[in-house]
Amino acid sequence: MRAAVFRNGEIVVDEMPEPKPGAGQVLVKSLACGICGSDLHARKHAHRMVELAKHFPGRKPMDLSRDVVFGHEFCCEVLDYGPGTTGKLKAGTKVCSLPALLTPEGPKGIGYSNDNVGAYAERLLLSETLLLEVPNGLAAEHAALTEPLAVGVHAVAKANIRGGEVPLVIGCGPVGLAVIAALKIRGLHPIVAADYSPARRALAEKLGADVVVDPARSQPYATWAEHAQMSPEEKAARPPLQALLPALKPALIFECVGVPGLIQQVFEGAPRDARIVVVGVCMETDRSEPMLGIMKELNVQYVLGYTPEEFAYSLRLIAEGQVDAASMVTSTVGIGGVAKAFADLANPEVHTKIIVEPWR
Amino acid sequence: MRAAVFRNGEIVVDEMPEPKPGAGQVLVKSLACGICGSDLHARKHAHRMVELAKHFPGRKPMDLSRDVVFGHEFCCEVLDYGPGTTGKLKAGTKVCSLPALLTPEGPKGIGYSNDNVGAYAERLLLSETLLLEVPNGLAAEHAALTEPLAVGVHAVAKANIRGGEVPLVIGCGPVGLAVIAALKIRGLHPIVAADYSPARRALAEKLGADVVVDPARSQPYATWAEHAQMSPEEKAARPPLQALLPALKPALIFECVGVPGLIQQVFEGAPRDARIVVVGVCMETDRSEPMLGIMKELNVQYVLGYTPEEFAYSLRLIAEGQVDAASMVTSTVGIGGVAKAFADLANPEVHTKIIVEPWR
Repeated sequence: MRAAVFRNGEIVVDEMPEPKPGAGQVLVKSLACGICGSDLHARKHAHRMVELAKHFPGRKPMDLSRDVVFGHEFCCEVLDYGPGTTGKLKAGTKVCSLPALLTPEGPKGIGYSNDNVGAYAERLLLSETLLLEVPNGLAAEHAALTEPLAVGVHAVAKANIRGGEVPLVIGCGPVGLAVIAALKIRGLHPIVAADYSPARRALAEKLGADVVVDPARSQPYATWAEHAQMSPEEKAARPPLQALLPALKPALIFECVGVPGLIQQVFEGAPRDARIVVVGVCMETDRSEPMLGIMKELNVQYVLGYTPEEFAYSLRLIAEGQVDAASMVTSTVGIGGVAKAFADLANPEVHTKIIVEPWR
Repeated sequence: MRAAVFRNGEIVVDEMPEPKPGAGQVLVKSLACGICGSDLHARKHAHRMVELAKHFPGRKPMDLSRDVVFGHEFCCEVLDYGPGTTGKLKAGTKVCSLPALLTPEGPKGIGYSNDNVGAYAERLLLSETLLLEVPNGLAAEHAALTEPLAVGVHAVAKANIRGGEVPLVIGCGPVGLAVIAALKIRGLHPIVAADYSPARRALAEKLGADVVVDPARSQPYATWAEHAQMSPEEKAARPPLQALLPALKPALIFECVGVPGLIQQVFEGAPRDARIVVVGVCMETDRSEPMLGIMKELNVQYVLGYTPEEFAYSLRLIAEGQVDAASMVTSTVGIGGVAKAFADLANPEVHTKIIVEPWR
């Protein structure tokens, strides 16, 4: 079968051996697979990723001298079953799954592994027990957005919302947009979102941002503060010494950029007692001033991934039209277009989410 | 009056003008004042402190070309009242106060200010409404430990304890010891504490640590894990996918050292989902790997200071003998001994808390 292969730091098209489903596994056809920011990171920082894996004794790092097929945001079609399966979903059924394969040696990731190809290949293996049937009629390229939406749903769940917070989303790439969509579902308003790109700001509004900021024109934290003023009742209810502080509602800041220096920028801009959720994936060593965190008593919650429940919930949100996931898709390509798509994603004005359709 | 003055980066003894109580203020005699790690930091990193103040528009930074008198962990004796006071506590009463002076322009810090001398001077000004009478019989040098204990009480309060966590305290200087004492009061066990110094480990045990670790001999996180194993019931109650993770109780890590690299060390050692409370004050720029935080979904709560309620509670804890604060005091000096005491505090085997008695 054909696949877009990560080899020697580049994405190339090549033939791969046909995968064979083991016990409990299903052979599926990749219908649609989103290109994730993590894939771009992995291509650029593959050696860092391997190096960081040393901190996680359970995880097998990628062997970069061997081929890897990326692709973990997928919607597939059931083709065939391995031994020890029930075959409950018949061939032809459209399915999603979180990107993990249950093996006799424990669960393994799909997409950053030498053993389990991701969905930039024509076919791949999934575990039957993790399959979620795509509700009737939802297009594969939209069902494939389940995984990135789940990242936002999880980030918002980990933010430990008590009610009354005013959120600020820094960066409106796919991760920031998923956070905005999840915040809208939670009913937290106003949602303030910042991005340098007009196209991304327009998308942020489409997905639920109430206020968008261009950081080149105005300071996101100042705009946030304008929209986070306490009501006269809230002001009056504060204990005497707190009455000396600015009368702002609690800040909930989502860092959705993931490059070095961003956390320090948030530390500088954040108001006292802000809660910061780090959703952007920064693969490089970063610097910050702990004193700013200390003097403002900031809280930083790093997040990754999602639970199986959050994943299934995200698929339902898209299928029920509660999240306009379709608006994120800016292009679809075949296997031959993956390498160029990686380059194209550098321009936020043109692209947000590119979907790979390996069957094309 | 005489004072130990911070001038041109050094501590020198000199005469100062006698302070005059303004409206609502009280003239007090400094009976006892602890030397705080922050004072050592401030001496070494005074310019950083001034630079960081730019992020806090309300705060007036120190003018380092002028004199400053440190000392914010104090117990004093009432001498005389300014206008607009009630004079409720008669002259001779022993009092504590959080280190702030209420002025017509708002509250100002005591101890890192050109205007309000701290308690390394013979006399200073306090605000009448902030005075707490020291319960009868408690020695001034022990009442002076209210402030450092309040730092630990606050850190534990901000840790958002849900029950069932196993705490690990990194560093058993005065801050770590205060955290241990506050954890013991909260009833969280076992308390695991790590420090390179045998003297500090002995103190940690005295204040409530159940397990002490010498990081030169064994890895604190490994020792923590030995004492954080889930019970068979807790293991059985986990959802299926979590059953694949190590069966550890939730980790609550207190970083009480405050030097660059420590947070990264905690990120490397911490188990998945750990909550980290940063109590140690690191004045320098720090580096860390955000990816470790992300992959482990760590939470970092930076803390500073305490509330007025936590301060008053800490005085009661000492006065009622619930915290053996006395064991922290390793020496007392007069004004002339402050400069040498700053140097002596570098040796953790000999000193933990040195108390300044300016009247000597």
